[in-house]
Amino acid sequence: MTIEITKLPSGLRIITDQMRDLETASLGVWVAAGSRHEASDEHGLSHLLEHMAFKGTQRRSARQIAEEIEAAGGDINAATSVEQTAYYARVLSSDTGLAIDILADILTDSLFDPAELEREKSVILQEIGAVEDTPDDLVFDLFNSAAFPDQPLGRPILGTPERVSAFDRDAIGAYMARHYAAPATVISAAGGVEHARIVDEVSERFSRLAPAAEGQMVKAAYVGGDLRLQRKLEQTHIVIGFEGISFRDPANYAAHIFCNAAGGGMSSRLFQEVREQRGLAYSIYSFNWGYEDTGLFGVYAACAPKDVAELMPVTLDCLAQSVATLDAGDVHRAKAQMKVSLLTALESSSARAEQIARQLLAFDRVLDKQEIIERIDGLSLEDVRRAGASMISSAPTVAAIGSVGKVWTPDRIAQRLRG
Amino acid sequence: MTIEITKLPSGLRIITDQMRDLETASLGVWVAAGSRHEASDEHGLSHLLEHMAFKGTQRRSARQIAEEIEAAGGDINAATSVEQTAYYARVLSSDTGLAIDILADILTDSLFDPAELEREKSVILQEIGAVEDTPDDLVFDLFNSAAFPDQPLGRPILGTPERVSAFDRDAIGAYMARHYAAPATVISAAGGVEHARIVDEVSERFSRLAPAAEGQMVKAAYVGGDLRLQRKLEQTHIVIGFEGISFRDPANYAAHIFCNAAGGGMSSRLFQEVREQRGLAYSIYSFNWGYEDTGLFGVYAACAPKDVAELMPVTLDCLAQSVATLDAGDVHRAKAQMKVSLLTALESSSARAEQIARQLLAFDRVLDKQEIIERIDGLSLEDVRRAGASMISSAPTVAAIGSVGKVWTPDRIAQRLRG
Repeated sequence: MTIEITKLPSGLRIITDQMRDLETASLGVWVAAGSRHEASDEHGLSHLLEHMAFKGTQRRSARQIAEEIEAAGGDINAATSVEQTAYYARVLSSDTGLAIDILADILTDSLFDPAELEREKSVILQEIGAVEDTPDDLVFDLFNSAAFPDQPLGRPILGTPERVSAFDRDAIGAYMARHYAAPATVISAAGGVEHARIVDEVSERFSRLAPAAEGQMVKAAYVGGDLRLQRKLEQTHIVIGFEGISFRDPANYAAHIFCNAAGGGMSSRLFQEVREQRGLAYSIYSFNWGYEDTGLFGVYAACAPKDVAELMPVTLDCLAQSVATLDAGDVHRAKAQMKVSLLTALESSSARAEQIARQLLAFDRVLDKQEIIERIDGLSLEDVRRAGASMISSAPTVAAIGSVGKVWTPDRIAQRLRG
Repeated sequence: MTIEITKLPSGLRIITDQMRDLETASLGVWVAAGSRHEASDEHGLSHLLEHMAFKGTQRRSARQIAEEIEAAGGDINAATSVEQTAYYARVLSSDTGLAIDILADILTDSLFDPAELEREKSVILQEIGAVEDTPDDLVFDLFNSAAFPDQPLGRPILGTPERVSAFDRDAIGAYMARHYAAPATVISAAGGVEHARIVDEVSERFSRLAPAAEGQMVKAAYVGGDLRLQRKLEQTHIVIGFEGISFRDPANYAAHIFCNAAGGGMSSRLFQEVREQRGLAYSIYSFNWGYEDTGLFGVYAACAPKDVAELMPVTLDCLAQSVATLDAGDVHRAKAQMKVSLLTALESSSARAEQIARQLLAFDRVLDKQEIIERIDGLSLEDVRRAGASMISSAPTVAAIGSVGKVWTPDRIAQRLRG
């Protein structure tokens, strides 16, 4: 292994993976704070903070942040998810010091200037508008809300226009103070990097992170439900889903294999039946998202309104049959794809930096390649079917946008699955 | 250099780039045939052929194609563009033979079974429907049509529902026989590959490609124009563009640098003014596409309908000022970003396989890293301004979807730019 980990006295963890011969490096800061850590009056605040981090510090204006990293040919970006927020850069190996300096600056010394805040709110309102205009994004917001109603986990990460417009500088500061603490943070670097040098640079520049996080998270309670939006569209966009499996659950790998065999690749049950045999959809795939204490498993499909009546039972029968008749060949293919995806990710510095950061945040250690492959290989057909059966036996969630009249209700979905 | 090239007697070219230590390989077939090679009654046929290649051969059903590659953990896909079509796979290094066997099978021995054809047409109608529902895709179809009216280059790659529905097996066969010939084809592999072995496998399996291509291409004639679609949307999606520069033109690199400085990164003129200073848009960027004999340069932006009246002059002034006041710092940053992007691409086997295949098709040779860097470094501020000035002096093209009433006409755009 080329992975090295250092934990600073503050609790901040630094992890690096040196990949020989690479001239570039991917590095970033992963913080265990996302939309589900928001209080009820903080909806959208994690994402607003992520935007505002780039809007100027004591030492650099927003323009200087952009110009300095780009003058070195690098780029810097960030992403807010449900349980984490990541700030990351790609630079020449010789410029890791610059990237760390800028990341530290924006995460420990941001001004959150009120005039910048007003402008950035307006940018986020545009971002919310873009999601509204993209039905295959928006249907997932509906899906999450239906699955976890009235809970942080079910709310759109971007927030609502009303809430975003209402936040002030103090709200951002309070959220940051509660969540952006050293023990909740991992700094990860992969590619042309040297561990000792990264540790030195981080130690010097990240000393201002708070020593303890006060963040907490409301435990998720999956409910299931039905949210649909009638719109004049060419396609009806549908998500059908169920409570999935937490990434902490030992059955997590079996759930991934099930998801892949049911609707992952071109040879999966759903792709073969819905697209190849019937030509009902261009896009049809399953997904499996693990969270701290729960998960979501589901299927996305888009089809012509006239085909919804056929798509619904065919999709559900594929899921039921994936449990009942999954065979050794299906499981072999799904395992093989998962293993090659793992190797492929190991060949990319950005994928590697992200993977090891997430593992460290979740498990406080890195799972090595051999360990993951052994876990995958160790799964029996029965394990995989059981994971699938357990997921699709939960209360269904359905979300749809377009001509939604013929999209089945959760009750009817449950009836079909229970045969 | 780790690049090796072999030309077979048939004219088929094989290029490999061995990347030491990689356990996976990216490889594919690039054919110099895309939507602009289609006759007037063939609109959408390149893309239909690309889909049908996966629908069964003499030796393998569609399901077997999917199952064989996925049983090895690999994946296979394809993409049709304006001047090329690519079929590519990612597999373990030990499975390059399997990938080549399948790629050869689907490209030289496909059945184009009529029943499969009917189903696949229905899938493509769904794909066309998906674009209709995605305004930031659809606006680019409008833009191309307005820029190159009544020409193959201006038509949507997917075709129209009417035309796609009308194609039969003979049409596919005739198109393929005309265009999918050995001299018009490059097979490229990067990652954990050995040149000699790839050459052996390709020589054995690709012997059935025709020795000469009869394909021809209508010379492009950029016109410019205005296409807009009134729709009830949260945002107005706008593309403003101009005739760009062919990838064969020596000014091509200068055009890329201009595009980057005007609207490429976070420090670009458009991002700073439109998003950072005014908060008018979440998405704002410029693009620069080179074709054989022409190009397109333009800007995409999406904003709230109330902001269109402000966005139009601000965007145009940014473009005009990018020509008039671009400085050494702007050009330095754009050059640095282009160089690091180049190095980053060299670290990914899939990016590398694609890059060398495209260069070989276009120039019959590979431009090495040092050569590209020297070309970039050799550009003066004056070269970059001149490329920008030349592009924005052409007749404007505008395309828009949403509340389009306040989107400026090409005449008004030209007036503003000419001051």
